[in-house]
Amino acid sequence: MEANGLIYTHDELEAEYDKLLAIAEKKGASTWQMRVKQQTPHCKFGEDGVCCRICSMGPCRITKKAPRGICGCDAHGIVGRNYLRFTAGGSATHSDHGREIAHTLYCASRDGAYHVKDEAKLISIATRWGIETEGRDIYDVAHDVALAGLEEYGKVFGYQNWIKDATPERQKVWIEQEIAPRAVDREVSKALHMTHMGCSSLPEALIRQSLRCGLSDGWGGSMTGTQFSDIMFGTPMPIDTEANLGVLKKDYVNIIVHGHDPSLSEMIVEYAEDKELVALAHEVGAKGINIAGVCCTSNEVAMRHGIPMAGNFLQQENCVLTGAVEAVVVDVQCIFPALGPLSKCFHTKFITTSDTARMPDSDFIKFEAETAAENAYNIVKMAVENFKNRDQEAVYIPDMKRKATVGYSCEAIIKQLDTVTNSQVDETGTYQPLIDCITSGVLRGAVAMVGCNNPKVRSDHGHIDLMKKLLKNDIILVLSGCSAQAAAKYGLMSKDANEICGDGLKRVCTLADIPPVLHMGSCVDISRMMNLVCDVAAQWGIDTPQLPVVGCAPEWMSEKAVSIGNYVVATGIDTFLGVVPYVYGSSEVTELLTNGIRDWVGAAYTFETDIEKLGDLMIERIEEKRAALGI
Amino acid sequence: MEANGLIYTHDELEAEYDKLLAIAEKKGASTWQMRVKQQTPHCKFGEDGVCCRICSMGPCRITKKAPRGICGCDAHGIVGRNYLRFTAGGSATHSDHGREIAHTLYCASRDGAYHVKDEAKLISIATRWGIETEGRDIYDVAHDVALAGLEEYGKVFGYQNWIKDATPERQKVWIEQEIAPRAVDREVSKALHMTHMGCSSLPEALIRQSLRCGLSDGWGGSMTGTQFSDIMFGTPMPIDTEANLGVLKKDYVNIIVHGHDPSLSEMIVEYAEDKELVALAHEVGAKGINIAGVCCTSNEVAMRHGIPMAGNFLQQENCVLTGAVEAVVVDVQCIFPALGPLSKCFHTKFITTSDTARMPDSDFIKFEAETAAENAYNIVKMAVENFKNRDQEAVYIPDMKRKATVGYSCEAIIKQLDTVTNSQVDETGTYQPLIDCITSGVLRGAVAMVGCNNPKVRSDHGHIDLMKKLLKNDIILVLSGCSAQAAAKYGLMSKDANEICGDGLKRVCTLADIPPVLHMGSCVDISRMMNLVCDVAAQWGIDTPQLPVVGCAPEWMSEKAVSIGNYVVATGIDTFLGVVPYVYGSSEVTELLTNGIRDWVGAAYTFETDIEKLGDLMIERIEEKRAALGI
Repeated sequence: MEANGLIYTHDELEAEYDKLLAIAEKKGASTWQMRVKQQTPHCKFGEDGVCCRICSMGPCRITKKAPRGICGCDAHGIVGRNYLRFTAGGSATHSDHGREIAHTLYCASRDGAYHVKDEAKLISIATRWGIETEGRDIYDVAHDVALAGLEEYGKVFGYQNWIKDATPERQKVWIEQEIAPRAVDREVSKALHMTHMGCSSLPEALIRQSLRCGLSDGWGGSMTGTQFSDIMFGTPMPIDTEANLGVLKKDYVNIIVHGHDPSLSEMIVEYAEDKELVALAHEVGAKGINIAGVCCTSNEVAMRHGIPMAGNFLQQENCVLTGAVEAVVVDVQCIFPALGPLSKCFHTKFITTSDTARMPDSDFIKFEAETAAENAYNIVKMAVENFKNRDQEAVYIPDMKRKATVGYSCEAIIKQLDTVTNSQVDETGTYQPLIDCITSGVLRGAVAMVGCNNPKVRSDHGHIDLMKKLLKNDIILVLSGCSAQAAAKYGLMSKDANEICGDGLKRVCTLADIPPVLHMGSCVDISRMMNLVCDVAAQWGIDTPQLPVVGCAPEWMSEKAVSIGNYVVATGIDTFLGVVPYVYGSSEVTELLTNGIRDWVGAAYTFETDIEKLGDLMIERIEEKRAALGI
Repeated sequence: MEANGLIYTHDELEAEYDKLLAIAEKKGASTWQMRVKQQTPHCKFGEDGVCCRICSMGPCRITKKAPRGICGCDAHGIVGRNYLRFTAGGSATHSDHGREIAHTLYCASRDGAYHVKDEAKLISIATRWGIETEGRDIYDVAHDVALAGLEEYGKVFGYQNWIKDATPERQKVWIEQEIAPRAVDREVSKALHMTHMGCSSLPEALIRQSLRCGLSDGWGGSMTGTQFSDIMFGTPMPIDTEANLGVLKKDYVNIIVHGHDPSLSEMIVEYAEDKELVALAHEVGAKGINIAGVCCTSNEVAMRHGIPMAGNFLQQENCVLTGAVEAVVVDVQCIFPALGPLSKCFHTKFITTSDTARMPDSDFIKFEAETAAENAYNIVKMAVENFKNRDQEAVYIPDMKRKATVGYSCEAIIKQLDTVTNSQVDETGTYQPLIDCITSGVLRGAVAMVGCNNPKVRSDHGHIDLMKKLLKNDIILVLSGCSAQAAAKYGLMSKDANEICGDGLKRVCTLADIPPVLHMGSCVDISRMMNLVCDVAAQWGIDTPQLPVVGCAPEWMSEKAVSIGNYVVATGIDTFLGVVPYVYGSSEVTELLTNGIRDWVGAAYTFETDIEKLGDLMIERIEEKRAALGI
């Protein structure tokens, strides 16, 4: 252990995970570790992006002897198309999350399951969007804002409303470069049309639409997901929680909430405290009902309720392997279909709830905003009643968990910065103290670290090793998604983790009373980071690409991550990936992504699978930007 | 030659194509025939649909030893996802064509490039859609209808407007089966979300969304494409034309229009008659300007202006190989990127015009509805000026072409049927004479034959051999897309082709003065066939699946074809494919498509690569349906 045992080492955690793998083996259950072995090596054509299955004349594969597909498309066209389609998959998915949240807000009512919690945020959005607020019932305003949000997915004319929250420079760049996002779904359809057989094969056109499609996510659907969630469930403020498998409780009914949409998880959390259901839990011999989260759902309920984090993406099977989980309740995205057959090896109920994510070997209880209370009650009840089927003897819950402080929304960060402001002299409610720390060099810069796990990187090593390196170099971190949970599981999201930081960062964190890695939420909440960089740049009086800030997804795996990468880059933030997208089969596409697009948007990608080098490159880039600013 | 030399044999045509291939070889130009050889054999994982590249943990491939991907998804989930994505690609693409047309209608004006030609159709749609028409300027009505059409792509609530034109039984089925299409783009995004990593892996859910996404095309975007095109460019009525490479003229400037969107081709046709440009053609030594079509653009301008058809999908390279083409002017879809490098081997200009289809090695002249006249002028001028670069010595135009009568819209069919109606006794303006022919057995039934070419079937053999077989069996054919051009190229779309039909069909065609294969338009015009079957069923008083009618795409290749297949099947019409979609890796998905979905919508797919057998199966199905009806 490092820092007086506050931060787990990889070895410590992996020793425990291995025990769970041994349980799997004994049960004859399949785990991702086994399936990775079965699926290795991967198809080189697919990895290089030069396999095309877009029409049924093929599939075609590009080689030296077969430099073009049957239609005549070359490697650059094929790779570019595949990249745009990958983006479209991510953008559609991420944005559809936002649509669900907008629909939930549309269903909110004073006496219903969903309420308006952050009235100020609602009023602020309504005002910016030209929706009347004066003298109106707050729920009428909410429904109009929700409807306006829903219309952003399909409006016939104009750009996304949210882009007005970006800096004027960014808006200008997007419009001039013809990548300003129109209706969210339209950009998705346009992407598919461009990549249809016999349409675009020019890399520049394909990559341009990739950026646009990404922007319709980050400054469209995802932004709606974040902002509307805050309206209903509250804008996150710092709250303490715990993380890692040790948060499961042997004597309790354990329910894992896993997926993304807080419409579901908020209700599950509420019904876990339902008197009737708690009484039922006592009846079946449990001390109570314990909820723990996995993946982004975990971020959502941790930052608003302090619900503990069982783990991130590659921890989902481990939860079941403990034998202590009565139900894994899931909605959409990043849910292993493996949980179906795996849960059959234990007493665990695998409960799917969304039409968008139907899986074999699951109990399907359709969850809808209109009937949320009833649905949530039935789900929790099913879990509680399942406690009696648990083989208590066979339970193994690793005794490992760490404290974490989570919930640093932009509003929370500003509030925290206010505490170090001299109220006699300084303006409060701004990012100025942060800017001062960076310009003075106490902080060298910031990294937004995000994204998934991916077995191509030893699980969590990428996240954790990079974090430690950056913290030592006085670079502050803002985190979301599975990167955030990695930090929390290891102990890096505790205020005590200041111990392992460089002197500057340590001082800042101690003064501001914050952990050195700030939890900003789930993967849709990368939109918060976009607001943060735009607002800091605006206050600083520079354009976003000038900020000593970079983005990083060391272990990304999903299409959403590429959509995100595209909007982060288009927002002017250099982005560093530890897993290479399927593009190396085209020098032209690779060149565009890692260099060429800098001419369009002021930022580009860096791909580097050596995590140590990836960190060096980020530090180097931050120092370059400092030098350019003369700080 | 058959029927006194009226119908070409395969050998006759292929002998000529071979001469063009020899020219290519001499020039060192790449052709699809060569690229097919390079790309054969195809990847078996891809062909079976068991390769997954949806996240970057993979790619994963299913084998006996690796029965699940890293996430745990099995073959059924992977195949189902790939099938839904294939559909989504097609639906987005086909529908986006309709959006462009709606946008063009939105730009129509009395003194502009685009006009309202079919006022009756416009008024009829406006009335059905609840748009005021009384006492209004027709262009105001047009703009409101156009806007309503555009809103169908993204409206927040409700189903597609067009579904009200289907039978009440169909609408009921779609709503009950939860496949009634909502906003077009929304169904596309939903499809991508469901197929994202960690979402749906249940075949039933994936195939259900495939049908819904297809319906949003056929009873949404494509229908808009067809109907709005008719409003602006006229509802097709029978017109004579010619087909095959012999339509190119040695002494003329030859311009090939290729792609799909009549907004472009209509203007090119108009400017080919522009006095100034014709004078310029004379100046450069040509006798005039000759326009010929390829792919669906060809169908569009043939059925409205009698513009000759140079050929279908796999004929596009042949046009350039003649050395007689000054320009290939393309918009979107099914355009070989190969035309870029190929045109460089000749004097031919390869002119791309759409942001949606940008290709290397092309001249890009952006064509927009707002500046259509100017754009079209410049395009035609570029072609005319290029005549001087033609190597007239090296020109080889095969002396082969056949007459064709095209343009059988639903309105045209009814009009033709009226000519055999006894106006003293019968109601006119109905499909009753057709129904009478079928119930009496003079016609056994009808086949809608559609779709592309695909080198997996010897080019056009599938279309032509099936047509001949069906005609002999007194089955009338309605055609669209590249299937229609195949028929026209061979001579089957001539009224003289009645000679090769069975006695019943021959009598009907002679009496009604129609060819035995009726040209209904381009691939978006399969929506006309949907109107036809629904209206015939309604008049007959039966549900669509009871009709002795089947659909067939013997040589399909594009994603659009699968989207089409899904909405044809969902409209209750059994559909027969001569190329197997990438689904054989999953018994569950295959079973659903070929049988299971019959329980939902009353129709299903048949996959059969033996074209002879495919024909037998269609005839068998038609006779089964007749027997069930007791006719």
